[in-house]
Amino acid sequence: MNFTFERLHRFSRNIFLTIGCSETDAEIAATTLLSADLRGVDSHGVARLSGYIRLWEAGRINAKPDIKVTYETPSTAVVDGDGGLGLVVAPYAMQVAISKAQIAGTGWVSVKNSNHYGIAGVHAMEALEHDMIGISMTNASPLVSPTFSSERLLGTNPIAVAIPAKEQPPFVADLATTTAANGKLEILLRKNEQAPLGWIQDKDGFPTTSPNGVKDGGALLPLGGDREHGSHKGYALGAIVDIFSAVLSGANYGPWVPPFVAFLQPDPNPVGEGLGHFFGAMRVDAFRPADEFKENMDIWIKRFRTSKTTADHDKVLIPGDPERELEQERRATGIPLLKPVEEDLRHLGEKFNVKF
Amino acid sequence: MNFTFERLHRFSRNIFLTIGCSETDAEIAATTLLSADLRGVDSHGVARLSGYIRLWEAGRINAKPDIKVTYETPSTAVVDGDGGLGLVVAPYAMQVAISKAQIAGTGWVSVKNSNHYGIAGVHAMEALEHDMIGISMTNASPLVSPTFSSERLLGTNPIAVAIPAKEQPPFVADLATTTAANGKLEILLRKNEQAPLGWIQDKDGFPTTSPNGVKDGGALLPLGGDREHGSHKGYALGAIVDIFSAVLSGANYGPWVPPFVAFLQPDPNPVGEGLGHFFGAMRVDAFRPADEFKENMDIWIKRFRTSKTTADHDKVLIPGDPERELEQERRATGIPLLKPVEEDLRHLGEKFNVKF
Repeated sequence: MNFTFERLHRFSRNIFLTIGCSETDAEIAATTLLSADLRGVDSHGVARLSGYIRLWEAGRINAKPDIKVTYETPSTAVVDGDGGLGLVVAPYAMQVAISKAQIAGTGWVSVKNSNHYGIAGVHAMEALEHDMIGISMTNASPLVSPTFSSERLLGTNPIAVAIPAKEQPPFVADLATTTAANGKLEILLRKNEQAPLGWIQDKDGFPTTSPNGVKDGGALLPLGGDREHGSHKGYALGAIVDIFSAVLSGANYGPWVPPFVAFLQPDPNPVGEGLGHFFGAMRVDAFRPADEFKENMDIWIKRFRTSKTTADHDKVLIPGDPERELEQERRATGIPLLKPVEEDLRHLGEKFNVKF
Repeated sequence: MNFTFERLHRFSRNIFLTIGCSETDAEIAATTLLSADLRGVDSHGVARLSGYIRLWEAGRINAKPDIKVTYETPSTAVVDGDGGLGLVVAPYAMQVAISKAQIAGTGWVSVKNSNHYGIAGVHAMEALEHDMIGISMTNASPLVSPTFSSERLLGTNPIAVAIPAKEQPPFVADLATTTAANGKLEILLRKNEQAPLGWIQDKDGFPTTSPNGVKDGGALLPLGGDREHGSHKGYALGAIVDIFSAVLSGANYGPWVPPFVAFLQPDPNPVGEGLGHFFGAMRVDAFRPADEFKENMDIWIKRFRTSKTTADHDKVLIPGDPERELEQERRATGIPLLKPVEEDLRHLGEKFNVKF
């Protein structure tokens, strides 16, 4: 069944208010959360609302955080999220990066003591209206094995980069550093289909096509899938995200990142505080006049979009195209929710006496 | 046959002097070039020396460039390489990034009007001795097709990130944004072996295992290999490298990047000047005390290196491990050159009256 953006936004906002968020924070958290549903990343949107609330119930999310800059230079800052919702901490930190860029040309912010922040892309896109390039990354619950390892040491650790153009819509890349995101496995499980080789390995590190592979103690594989296809590159990229997000800021990294699910306990001997993010903003006119840059982006985008296709496809996409088209569609016709998600939200509403 | 580093370095330096480079530039160019041989990236080292010289003969490399900063803000700069050797322009630009970082916390430099710069990693590593994280990327001759395209629109566009640790050796990732670098194909060609599926496509965009696929008008594939295994992510990463290196600086991008081989002409209607690079330097103490950061990097590295392995491997590597081990070995026992490379260098020496 389809639900309007407004309805799901109002409901999420009211739930966040109920757990004690301020009006402003509840608004920001709902907008950040729902941007995932609008852009088609259904695994990271309203379907996760009750997961966030369970973390709050477990005392692992602070609904009234005192988010602040704890250290800074002209072009850098560390933000302490005070255990708040990543959905609120991340927009704050991205604004710090943008403010730094306005003065120093670029701004770079590493964040500790945060929680999951929704989709990476939406934070990077905050830079666009300022004629800046936005960068966003985060570490996450360990589900991914490095090449040659059978342990889960990294999250799906996404990298997002948003780049403004002039007449063309912006370039927005938003990619997990794994072959396939966890959400895709959930879809296979629901349909009871096998996964392609190269997505997952079993608990001993052997390739598997079972969609239950990760649940049964296996792991997602870094982008590349195996060594012959460059999985050491996906592993390196996921590692860079982890280090920029958490070793720079003082958050937990690698296998110490606190799990998103409330039924798993965080490591009793953490190496840092909460989980970490990393944001960047670069003023394009810190390099060349903004108009000149954006005109060249238009040429770049048009050249790639109109390039000759392979026999089995009729167009070449620019990063961000599929998500933008889906957002237009879903703003018009609503956001489809699976029956179990709808039921889950209804129960959540009943529990907190918030009308769904 | 093995050659000492010193011998190959002296020869390269003398060749660069012969074409008119200054003493300083010839020294820097030889050191940058040879770092590829030391680190085992044989395709980008002294084997390319005669290729650089052919570009100079074709009037496409300026041996006496006036390299300069043409625009800057506290944390950014654009460097114009004046058509010089990338081997010389890149170290200059990286030093600008490091100087910016000393004052502003970070420094970001986009470069135009340059040429191929050797291996990406060696430039990023310049930051390490300053307790900075170094970042290096470059665009390159178009050999790679975006997902769903049958045209060559991107180079192998590498990303390198070097991160200092305390007792542990540094983390140094240096990765082409393709499944396999072009050098690996050359090895298969020499051995007359098939390539794995996922490395290349033929001229119509169909998967092929022929090592001649690229020569016959096909293309290398972005990291991921195909859409199901995330090639759209490798494509996005290669695109980001292209845009940061060339759209930000005013260099040529995408299919307009001038080819490395002198027998192919650059596009008569360029969209910018030369090819482009992008460099970053981030002072780790612009985020937290350097010692604290480096101690946590040691913990990170040790945890990953000692993680449980898969059945078919006995250790988990940290990015940079294989290259560092090879460098130690080659400094001790010399750099192996294939017979054709040795012959090529001998001819080059005869031509320029430089003793090999």
